[in-house]
Amino acid sequence: MAAIRKSMVAEEAGAAGEADDAVGLATRHLVQPWPYAGSAGAEARTLIGEGDGIYITDAMGKRLIDGPAGMWCTNVGHRREELARVMYDQSMQLSYNTPWYTMNAPSAQLAQRIAGHAPGDLSHVFFTTGGSTAVETALRFMQFYNNVKGRPDKKLILSRGGAYHGSTYLSASLNGRPRSHDWMDGLDAIAVKLTAPDPFRRPQGMSIEAFGDFLVEEFRDTVARIGAERIGAFIGEPVQASGGVIVPPDNYLKRIREICRVNDILFIADEVVTAFGRLGSIFASGEVFGLDPDMITFAKGVTSGYFPLGGVVISERLLEGLRRSNHPDALFGHGLTYTSHPVGCAVALKNLDLLEGGVLAHAREVAPYFQARLKSLEELPLVGEVRGMGLMACVECVADRESKNPLELDTNVGERIDRHCQELGLLVRPLINMCVMSPPLVITRGQIDTLVDILREGISRTMEELRKEGVWQG
Amino acid sequence: MAAIRKSMVAEEAGAAGEADDAVGLATRHLVQPWPYAGSAGAEARTLIGEGDGIYITDAMGKRLIDGPAGMWCTNVGHRREELARVMYDQSMQLSYNTPWYTMNAPSAQLAQRIAGHAPGDLSHVFFTTGGSTAVETALRFMQFYNNVKGRPDKKLILSRGGAYHGSTYLSASLNGRPRSHDWMDGLDAIAVKLTAPDPFRRPQGMSIEAFGDFLVEEFRDTVARIGAERIGAFIGEPVQASGGVIVPPDNYLKRIREICRVNDILFIADEVVTAFGRLGSIFASGEVFGLDPDMITFAKGVTSGYFPLGGVVISERLLEGLRRSNHPDALFGHGLTYTSHPVGCAVALKNLDLLEGGVLAHAREVAPYFQARLKSLEELPLVGEVRGMGLMACVECVADRESKNPLELDTNVGERIDRHCQELGLLVRPLINMCVMSPPLVITRGQIDTLVDILREGISRTMEELRKEGVWQG
Repeated sequence: MAAIRKSMVAEEAGAAGEADDAVGLATRHLVQPWPYAGSAGAEARTLIGEGDGIYITDAMGKRLIDGPAGMWCTNVGHRREELARVMYDQSMQLSYNTPWYTMNAPSAQLAQRIAGHAPGDLSHVFFTTGGSTAVETALRFMQFYNNVKGRPDKKLILSRGGAYHGSTYLSASLNGRPRSHDWMDGLDAIAVKLTAPDPFRRPQGMSIEAFGDFLVEEFRDTVARIGAERIGAFIGEPVQASGGVIVPPDNYLKRIREICRVNDILFIADEVVTAFGRLGSIFASGEVFGLDPDMITFAKGVTSGYFPLGGVVISERLLEGLRRSNHPDALFGHGLTYTSHPVGCAVALKNLDLLEGGVLAHAREVAPYFQARLKSLEELPLVGEVRGMGLMACVECVADRESKNPLELDTNVGERIDRHCQELGLLVRPLINMCVMSPPLVITRGQIDTLVDILREGISRTMEELRKEGVWQG
Repeated sequence: MAAIRKSMVAEEAGAAGEADDAVGLATRHLVQPWPYAGSAGAEARTLIGEGDGIYITDAMGKRLIDGPAGMWCTNVGHRREELARVMYDQSMQLSYNTPWYTMNAPSAQLAQRIAGHAPGDLSHVFFTTGGSTAVETALRFMQFYNNVKGRPDKKLILSRGGAYHGSTYLSASLNGRPRSHDWMDGLDAIAVKLTAPDPFRRPQGMSIEAFGDFLVEEFRDTVARIGAERIGAFIGEPVQASGGVIVPPDNYLKRIREICRVNDILFIADEVVTAFGRLGSIFASGEVFGLDPDMITFAKGVTSGYFPLGGVVISERLLEGLRRSNHPDALFGHGLTYTSHPVGCAVALKNLDLLEGGVLAHAREVAPYFQARLKSLEELPLVGEVRGMGLMACVECVADRESKNPLELDTNVGERIDRHCQELGLLVRPLINMCVMSPPLVITRGQIDTLVDILREGISRTMEELRKEGVWQG
């Protein structure tokens, strides 16, 4: 389990000096994402100095397995020389061109490659800088489409509890997180939230199948109540990621898709996390869930996090509808400076080569082992459920396995497990009472063993700690 | 004026083959930014194959001066090996780390360097992926700040005609463009639009000084009418960029700033275009306009367009207000996967080295020559005004110089000039009846001469064409 790199004293002292420097600067000049008011602009986080394969190394030379693969993104792993090389080469060839008046070859080639992997009639790509701007694009496209189609009132958006769609005003308004918890404003008037499709938290005594039926009925009833003529789109992650790796009941998504089709409600699959390998395929909508969405949003894995790139794959039928409309001069006034960035698209092309050239096959091959090994953690009494799919999984802790009651918020159980695991050589992604595991897709069986062993030990130490404090008696 | 590279026949044939390929792919698979409904997903634009210094080269080997510097961004010029090199090196060192649980040194160092250039008490930086997400961050921060301060109704945003603030739902709602023209939805309830501060279009018979007074009075009256307790922020570009390089009346911005201070309205300077050298300084707010905003948004020039990066510089006073509030546990639930990206921040650090190491000084040195040479185009009867500041300028065409009446929209005068100029070796940024010039800051006097000579010839050919067609008789 020893993942700790031995460092010479001199090396450590030097690293410590640089670390102090960066940490000091951060506490004086950097605002970290998602800060608390009490420490806004005065906070440092664990300083990472380098990455290699599935590992990142902190400033003291301690090597950690990158459990969350950055932020569900470092899919082909750190320090892939092919990706660094293509950034250099494309920057020397053409570092930027305005997409307003000009275009570049990598974006056209990438659009073709991506469309080739997309299900149904998804033929075209609009590129952005990440997931939030991809979701903004899909929704602004829906608004524009319905304006051109002469139905300006068909704009409401259905989303779900547990969802995460981004961090811009519009995209964040669709997140499932209770607003009151986070002090942030949102557009309540445009979003309608449905029940989280979380089988673990289904009503007691209800079968998973019945829970799926309930979700479908709720959706159907909501459309009937509000009126399809007022609903523009449904947006959902095939597997809810930040919500805690929620795998929905079988066929639930296909049934929702059909209700959308009948009611001319656009079905948007938000695959920012699930696309580009996390579930063993480029897109999960078609290959894993048998869906043919009207639009798919993507980001993260498309460049394995090396370069900010995202986008939307759009249905040929929708674009054809625009081209044949009575308003050919209507302007879709939407685009970013970095739309179709030549360097980002070149990185994504090379990243696709790596995925298609072996990484996807490897991910499919090790995924069952990954899930089975993690599932063994359900032996631990603090663990309520281990669930997942492909190379994404979640360990959910509970106060009591029978009632599934959660631990008190201030127990900070996720943070405790993360602290122990970091000592042991693993970075966890703690989500209150959950630990998400979504390592780089190149992880080997041996490395999966190490990851699970550390996590088991981290949870065991946390249980011991909680018992000592009298907070939990499982 | 000969900026056309001689190409061998074989080279041209090869380039043409690749061009056909990319162009064909684009028309089948790419959605360009800001498309018309009639050609959405079926449009190619001028294919650019490479960049070098102030030049870009199209797929046929024709070299063009990059008149708009990409999209106001390629400030240090194309093919800077130092920037390509740092992308390679940082990607091999650490290509990505999640900013939620970890941090990296380049972002902390860059935050310090940027804060060191910012005016007033602007001490901290929050990093995003570009201008739209920078504006989203500033405005969501304002919303959060006022929620924590216990004044949830103080959220309205004042912006102005002619403004451009981005292409997400919230940021686009602040743009000055008439909504009816572009078929896009917006948040009318949160934005209040004021008169464009455009001296050229001031009421006839009014002095520029009186126009400045009018703008200030309008602002003051608006605050009085709505109530300062309902207004959260004013956002404005020091020089409106996409609105047509609008340089406001002297001292107008300082007077607005003071009204904001008195009324506790946050003054946000949107320097996505003007920062990082365009006006000869890292930030124009302080050095050029004597302003101390509460927040400054930036993007584009911070990496010279090589990498999608933007951000907000935030006042120490505001952060201190959060830290000392009664709600230290209030969560600013905002952040992007690519916030504080190590590669982007490393590119920006090297780009700052280049700017501070000579490019800024050069820009300041050639700016008066650039403005004077362009000003000479006012000799042409189609030109109503040439205006600008630093290395950004706009040539505005009119039907009649006395009345300043614009040409009919369908004259497409900007597009015509662009077409002629591209034949002659210059890419223009046409904005209906305006041509924007904002070349890479490394442009030499000789290259400025070439740029202006081509533009003069392009406008002359356009005049001839319009006269022949009987559309214009100036």
